[in-house]
Amino acid sequence: MTKGTPDACAVVIFGASGDLASKKLLPALHNLQVDGFIPKETALLGTARTRFTHEQFAADTRKDLEKNSRISPTDDSWATFASDIFYVPGDVNDPALFQELKQKLEEIDERCGTGGNRVWYLSTLPAMFATIAEQLGKEGLLDTAGWHRLVVEKPFGHDLASARQLNTDLLRTFAEDQVFRIDHYLGKETVQNLLVFRFANAIFEPIWNRRYVDSVQITFAEDFGVGSRGKFYEDTGALRDVAQNHLMQLLSLTAMEPPVAWDADAIRDEKVQVLKAVRRWTPSECGEVAVRGQYKGYRDEDGVDVRSSTETYIAMKLRIDNWRWEGVPFYLRTGKCMAETLTEIAIQFQRVPHLLFAKTAVEELEPNVLVIRIKPDEGISLTFGTKIPGPEVEVRTVDMDFDYEADFGSGTAEAYERLLLEAMLGDATLFTRSDEIEQAWEIVDPIREHWMQGGRPGSYDEGSWGPRAATELLTRDGRSWRNGRS
Amino acid sequence: MTKGTPDACAVVIFGASGDLASKKLLPALHNLQVDGFIPKETALLGTARTRFTHEQFAADTRKDLEKNSRISPTDDSWATFASDIFYVPGDVNDPALFQELKQKLEEIDERCGTGGNRVWYLSTLPAMFATIAEQLGKEGLLDTAGWHRLVVEKPFGHDLASARQLNTDLLRTFAEDQVFRIDHYLGKETVQNLLVFRFANAIFEPIWNRRYVDSVQITFAEDFGVGSRGKFYEDTGALRDVAQNHLMQLLSLTAMEPPVAWDADAIRDEKVQVLKAVRRWTPSECGEVAVRGQYKGYRDEDGVDVRSSTETYIAMKLRIDNWRWEGVPFYLRTGKCMAETLTEIAIQFQRVPHLLFAKTAVEELEPNVLVIRIKPDEGISLTFGTKIPGPEVEVRTVDMDFDYEADFGSGTAEAYERLLLEAMLGDATLFTRSDEIEQAWEIVDPIREHWMQGGRPGSYDEGSWGPRAATELLTRDGRSWRNGRS
Repeated sequence: MTKGTPDACAVVIFGASGDLASKKLLPALHNLQVDGFIPKETALLGTARTRFTHEQFAADTRKDLEKNSRISPTDDSWATFASDIFYVPGDVNDPALFQELKQKLEEIDERCGTGGNRVWYLSTLPAMFATIAEQLGKEGLLDTAGWHRLVVEKPFGHDLASARQLNTDLLRTFAEDQVFRIDHYLGKETVQNLLVFRFANAIFEPIWNRRYVDSVQITFAEDFGVGSRGKFYEDTGALRDVAQNHLMQLLSLTAMEPPVAWDADAIRDEKVQVLKAVRRWTPSECGEVAVRGQYKGYRDEDGVDVRSSTETYIAMKLRIDNWRWEGVPFYLRTGKCMAETLTEIAIQFQRVPHLLFAKTAVEELEPNVLVIRIKPDEGISLTFGTKIPGPEVEVRTVDMDFDYEADFGSGTAEAYERLLLEAMLGDATLFTRSDEIEQAWEIVDPIREHWMQGGRPGSYDEGSWGPRAATELLTRDGRSWRNGRS
Repeated sequence: MTKGTPDACAVVIFGASGDLASKKLLPALHNLQVDGFIPKETALLGTARTRFTHEQFAADTRKDLEKNSRISPTDDSWATFASDIFYVPGDVNDPALFQELKQKLEEIDERCGTGGNRVWYLSTLPAMFATIAEQLGKEGLLDTAGWHRLVVEKPFGHDLASARQLNTDLLRTFAEDQVFRIDHYLGKETVQNLLVFRFANAIFEPIWNRRYVDSVQITFAEDFGVGSRGKFYEDTGALRDVAQNHLMQLLSLTAMEPPVAWDADAIRDEKVQVLKAVRRWTPSECGEVAVRGQYKGYRDEDGVDVRSSTETYIAMKLRIDNWRWEGVPFYLRTGKCMAETLTEIAIQFQRVPHLLFAKTAVEELEPNVLVIRIKPDEGISLTFGTKIPGPEVEVRTVDMDFDYEADFGSGTAEAYERLLLEAMLGDATLFTRSDEIEQAWEIVDPIREHWMQGGRPGSYDEGSWGPRAATELLTRDGRSWRNGRS
C-alpha cells in the first residue's frame, strides 16, 4: 500500500501569527512542497487577530522560512509557495471572520483547484478550540464538496473533565475520524520506529514481557528552563506539559500488544488497552509513587510567581496490570534544567539467573539494557556483558550501537512535516484518539489532586538529575535511574 | 578466583627449530614475560635434530622475536629472556637425548629455581608424539618434585582410530589432566567470549534454541591457498585440517548447554554432550549433507599431486539431536582461496510470525541474524529491521555493531600466549579433552569414508565462495550462505 500524494487542499491555520506557525507549520508546508510530498496547488490561508496585510504576512512568512526551515527557500520554491498564500485577520468570536474565510476559501478553490478540501489547523490558545470548531459548522464552512480535517494542537484539556468537555464540543461538529489531535512526538521517526522495531524483529518480542524485563525507564529531560514561557508554564507544569502526553505516548507504544493491522484504529485500540491497564493510583497512593521537583532558579523566571509551587520535574512509577507486564515497574520522568537534553526509553532486562564467572558476582554484572534513544542522536543500543581480554574471565558491559543518522543520513523530514502530511492524507495513526487522551488524563489526574492537598515540589539544582526524592523513589525498589547515556 | 602467576617452570619445546616455535611459541614466551604474566625465572629449553649451538639458537631466537613478536624485544627484555634460554640437539628416538635433557633440566632447576616444574611442548611431527611421551616416562624425566604438563600440537590423529591410539599412548605416561591438546582457536578472545556472551547476558539464552533459531552457519574461510604447505596439505585436506578441530570447537561452544561451573571439566563435559548429540550420518547419507571442493590452481601448487583429489573446501550440514536444537540445521564450511578471510558464527533467527507492514512482505524482510565475528575485526553484530525514514512504513535491515578492538584496544595477547599461560597454570579449559577429540573424529570420519568410495571434489574459482554443490546444499533447504560481511 503506497499512500501516494494527498489531494490538493487549503490549509487554514488559526493562530497564524504565532510561534508554532512561524517556527514549524509554515516551514513544514514549504518543505513538503519542495520535497514533492504535496501538490504545488496546496494553499495556505492564515488567520489571527494581528491585522497583517496579505503582503506583510507573505513577507513575514519568507523571513520565517529563511530563519526556521530545514530547507532554505530558493527564489523558485518561494515563488511556488507564495503564489498560494493568503491571510485574513479577525477574531474567532466574531462570525464575520468566518464569513470572510468562507469567501476567501471559495476564491482559493477556484484559483488553486483545492476542491473544497480543508485542513483546519487550530494553533490558537486552547480556550478557542471549541469556539472555532463550532463556528466552522455554524457558518457553513464545512459544507463543501471536499473533505474536512481538524488538527488540534496540544494541550488537549487541562484535566480529565476539560478534555472530555473538549472532545464533546469538537465531536458535535466533527466526526472522530476527522479530528487529528497533535502530539508532535508521534511525528518523530524513532517513535514510529519503536513499533517497527518491536514487530519487524522476531527476537525482541519473546523477551518483551515480565518474564525477562525487570523494569522500564522512560526519560524526557531538557537541559534548559522555561525561558520566555514562564507565564504559560505556571499554569501548566511538567505533569500536563509533558507527562500526560509525550510520556504516556512513549509508554503505550512500548508496552502495547501487537495490533491486528497497521492502521490508525488497530494501533490506537492497543494503545488504549495499555492505558486502561495502567493501575489507577488513589491520590493518597500518589505520595508514594510520584515525585515533583522545581529547579532552583524557577521562581526568578519572567512571569513566574515568587512563591510558585508549579513542578518543573515529575517522576512517577506506574504499574500495568495485565499478563504481559504484571510486576514490572515503569518509571517515567520529565524535567527542565536537567543535566542534559535526552529522551529515551530504556528496557532493563533481568539479571542472569546464575553466573558462571567466579571473578564477577551476579550483583556486579550489569543486566542487559536496550535503549531506544529519541533525542539526541536517534538510535538504538544494547548493552551486554563481554569478556575483558586477558587470562581472567572477567566480564564488562559494552554497547552495541545503531545510529539512525549514520545509516539513513540527516535531513529527514521533521515531525511537523510528517504530521501535516498524514493529516492531509487522512491517516490518523500518528494522532491521539479521544479515548486515548481521556485515559492519559485519568492516569495523571490523581497525582495533581494529591499535590493540591498540600506540600511543595522538592527543589533541585539546575544541571542535576532532579530532586532527591526521585532518587529515593527508585532506591526504595532497589533500583537506580540511568542518568545520561551509558 | 584470581589465577595469579604460574610457578616458575622450564618449558621444553620439542621441534624448537620449526616454524611454529619461531613464529608463535618463542614470541609468546617472551611476551608473557614482558607483560609480567609469568615469572622472569621461566626457562626455555629447546630441542630438535638441528645441531645448533646454544649461541646459534639464542641468536636465531632474537631474530625470530624481532620478526614475529607482537612486542619487539628491547635490550632489557632480551637480556632477561636470553639468560634462561637453552638448547640441546638430538633425535627423539635416541634415549641419550633424554638423558642430556634430564641433566640440562637439573642444571636449570638449580640455576633458575624452576623446582622441577615442566611444560613439555610437542611441536614435532605427529608421528613422534607417542615416542616422546613414552621416553619422558621411561628415562625418568617425570620423576621430579614439580608438576608436569604435556602440550600436544595438532593434528591429533588423522581419524578416529589413530586419535584413540594416540590418546592411549599418551595416557600410558600422563594423566588426562596433564595433557593439553592444542586447538589454537580456543586461545582467541572472541572464542572464549562466546561463552561469556551466552551466559553473562540474560536476553540471548531464552531465544538460543529451536523455537527461535532457524539455522546456524559457521564459516572459516581463508583467501589464500596452501602456499608452501602443499606437501603437508595433500595428506590432510580441509576436513582434517580445519573441520575436525576448529569447526567442531566453534560448533560445540555455540550449541552447548550452560556448564555447571567455569572449569575445565564442567565446560568440556557440556561440549562433549553436544558432540555426542550430533547425528552420525552414515557414509551413504554423506553424499547429501557434505560437499567437497578444490580450488582450480591447487594441483599446480608445490608438493601437490597433479591428479590430487584432496579437498581444499568442505561444507557440511549437521543436526543436533537434543531438545534444544532438534530441527535446526548447522551449516559448517571451510575453504582456501575463498573470496575473503573470514571466520564467523551466524545465528539466523526465524522470520516474524506475522508482518504488519503492508509495504513489506514477510518473505522480503530479512530475519534477525546475530553474527559473532572471530576474524577479522573480532566483534558481534546484530541485524534487525528498522523503519526507513519517510511517510511510508517500509522496513530495512540495519546492523547494530560491537567491535572488540574499538572498546578494548588492540595488542591484546595472542592465542598462543594465552594457551601457554593456561598450560603453565594447569587450567585445561581451553584445551581439548580426549573424548572431545574422539567425538569430533567420529562425526567427520564417515564423510571421508564416503569420499574414499569415489568421486572428486568439485572445482571452484580462486576468490569465489566454493563449489556450486555448496550453494545447492543450502538451496535445497530453502536457504543461502551468508557470503561475506553483508
